[in-house]
Amino acid sequence: MTTSSTSTSKAETNSGKYSPTTAIIHGEHGTPPMPWFGMDIGGTLTKLIYFEPKDISVEEEEQERESLKQIRKYLTSNVAYGKTGVRDEHLELKNREFGGRRGSVHFIRFPTSEMDAFLQMAKTKHFPSLARSICATGGGAYKFEEEFNKNVNLELHKFDELDCLIKGIHYIDRHNPNCECYYYDQPRSVEACEKRPYNFRNPYPYLVVNVGSGVSILVVYSPDNYRRVSGSSLGGGTFLGLCCLLTGCETFEEAIDLASEGDSKNVDKLVRDIYGGDYSRFNLSGDTVASSFGNMMCKERRNSISKPDLAKATLVMITNNIGSLARMCAVQEGIDRVVFVGNFLRVNVISMKLLAFAMDYWSEGTMKALFLEHEGYFGAMGCLLELMSSASADQETPSTTSDDDDSASSTDL
Amino acid sequence: MTTSSTSTSKAETNSGKYSPTTAIIHGEHGTPPMPWFGMDIGGTLTKLIYFEPKDISVEEEEQERESLKQIRKYLTSNVAYGKTGVRDEHLELKNREFGGRRGSVHFIRFPTSEMDAFLQMAKTKHFPSLARSICATGGGAYKFEEEFNKNVNLELHKFDELDCLIKGIHYIDRHNPNCECYYYDQPRSVEACEKRPYNFRNPYPYLVVNVGSGVSILVVYSPDNYRRVSGSSLGGGTFLGLCCLLTGCETFEEAIDLASEGDSKNVDKLVRDIYGGDYSRFNLSGDTVASSFGNMMCKERRNSISKPDLAKATLVMITNNIGSLARMCAVQEGIDRVVFVGNFLRVNVISMKLLAFAMDYWSEGTMKALFLEHEGYFGAMGCLLELMSSASADQETPSTTSDDDDSASSTDL
Repeated sequence: MTTSSTSTSKAETNSGKYSPTTAIIHGEHGTPPMPWFGMDIGGTLTKLIYFEPKDISVEEEEQERESLKQIRKYLTSNVAYGKTGVRDEHLELKNREFGGRRGSVHFIRFPTSEMDAFLQMAKTKHFPSLARSICATGGGAYKFEEEFNKNVNLELHKFDELDCLIKGIHYIDRHNPNCECYYYDQPRSVEACEKRPYNFRNPYPYLVVNVGSGVSILVVYSPDNYRRVSGSSLGGGTFLGLCCLLTGCETFEEAIDLASEGDSKNVDKLVRDIYGGDYSRFNLSGDTVASSFGNMMCKERRNSISKPDLAKATLVMITNNIGSLARMCAVQEGIDRVVFVGNFLRVNVISMKLLAFAMDYWSEGTMKALFLEHEGYFGAMGCLLELMSSASADQETPSTTSDDDDSASSTDL
Repeated sequence: MTTSSTSTSKAETNSGKYSPTTAIIHGEHGTPPMPWFGMDIGGTLTKLIYFEPKDISVEEEEQERESLKQIRKYLTSNVAYGKTGVRDEHLELKNREFGGRRGSVHFIRFPTSEMDAFLQMAKTKHFPSLARSICATGGGAYKFEEEFNKNVNLELHKFDELDCLIKGIHYIDRHNPNCECYYYDQPRSVEACEKRPYNFRNPYPYLVVNVGSGVSILVVYSPDNYRRVSGSSLGGGTFLGLCCLLTGCETFEEAIDLASEGDSKNVDKLVRDIYGGDYSRFNLSGDTVASSFGNMMCKERRNSISKPDLAKATLVMITNNIGSLARMCAVQEGIDRVVFVGNFLRVNVISMKLLAFAMDYWSEGTMKALFLEHEGYFGAMGCLLELMSSASADQETPSTTSDDDDSASSTDL
């Protein structure tokens, strides 16, 4: 999420801020009771991060609730959940210290449209017997609050998605033992263009372009200081929605696969189609797209177009529009590092290379497009961090809420 | 035309500049021989402006070539030419002084895809017996140069489309006895929103957003000083191309008619669809589009969607994207008047009201969207002006080119 320009300083409001009256019952050493989850309920995908402790002592295991054990085993021994849930095994952060424990951080996603199935699963796995609440960010934290409450007796602790996004980016970049950040070297050459690690240790100021269902653009000045400067409704949801309509595909993966076989030049009207060559007066080469889908107003051309060509044209249109918007924001803010994140970039090397090319080309080499390995998981990571810090803050200011749920014991682990 | 950001100062090049070696054979009093045409060959539409003298004396009429008379009568007694040519009668500028004569300025358009038919018509009407050349701008002036030359023995005098656009805007604004420029008052209220004349006599600096097949954005500092600051490939060609694909419509008029009956809220994912309400932290109301076409990734929703809804969503997506780009450019350049032109706005009150709303809303009332009655004809008008000034400049520096065409006589009228 989300759309259209507005700017609000971080200081303005923080309505999702954790409050003691909705306290998470804390675990030992100022940590919340397990399981430790961070959840980001977006317009299209829900991202779930789960910390799996691997340092469980024999004593601890004996005391561990059966339901907690089952959740742990269910999540970590599968890579697919139901028909549409997926654990991105290649992103797992192994053997990490987290909240005073050692273990693995797991990255799981499922379509937000499957929220009912998720709630059913949470019920089946007796999640509500372990925790009274779950930390969530993204629009769905607001939209589904009542359903969590009613259907599985879980309270949602809501955190702002952009706060979480920034926190998550910084955390994962610092704690991924492999290099989290990368760029494409020589983006103007199809043959030489190559993925390379990028040192993101001193990144300020930088621009974040978060491409989920829609697009949000933030300037980040420091770990605690950012501003939303722009947005667009033409994002990943637009790509997928249009692709489904135009090609009959049904998933993001199908749409990307189709696009990878297509040629957008058959669909788009290029400068060359209008000028017969370059428009040199304004440095527009003949290959530049003058009008996305511009050839499709002609019936003969529509009749002869292929689905892959339509998918590719859709991808190129959305990607270039995002690149152009990002570049304008970067120029306006005097920033030369632009980090693209969000699940639109998943399995989508075409868009990443296009963005790398566009940023380099139109800025005449002065701007760099950067990418992060954990693409769309930063909001959920930030949310998990909020869970940890809220619990420790909460231990400093003990909760005064009464509790008659059996998950309430602070020794619960 | 055209796409993606670049900026070039007007001073840089002017490859289309009229040169004495390709002189137009001039008429009396430093004017070119009739007929007087200005032509703008765009990616989708060709715009033709024709000056019809109404002050023809008996003597002049006797001397007038039969072919010239026929062209005049053909153009002025019809409002439709062939299957797709149209004279926009409501735009005619009547009883105007032009090039020392008095008469009417006519505004004619046809699809650029019908250029062959146009050339055939020019041949049938013996145009080449009257003039050796014709003044043209737009990409097609380059693309079709050879065809004009080979098929009808006409040279094209090429002028840059953006130079012509700016000249045309200023000329028509000054010479339209009715108010050329207008805006929408109270754009945030569906009921109260109303078209009102705007005094454009002292407009500098202002932004021009030219929406043809694609989009070009210019800052205009003075009549002779402008800069192209940005562009986008998501323009009128994108709207029409996508609409044809999604709804099976075949013309711009059909697409607009469909859109006027549709509701984009069924197609788009709104902030409310994701958040369940507003995203108040960043001032995004529940009605804001979060993801254009975002609901169309869901099969059930695709199956129940109507063509008008799809047309409307396409129109809203393209329009809002243009508005957002325009607003960013205006902010960057510190400009508060934004003039939207181009044939995308023809019979398209939906987009004009949306742009008026968006500019007002997102700028918090500090920016104004302006519109011009002659929408897409300014390039052709500027081109006609170039014809006139080139001929007079040429008379000061007589042409040295030889001429064996019978249209060569400088007394030809």
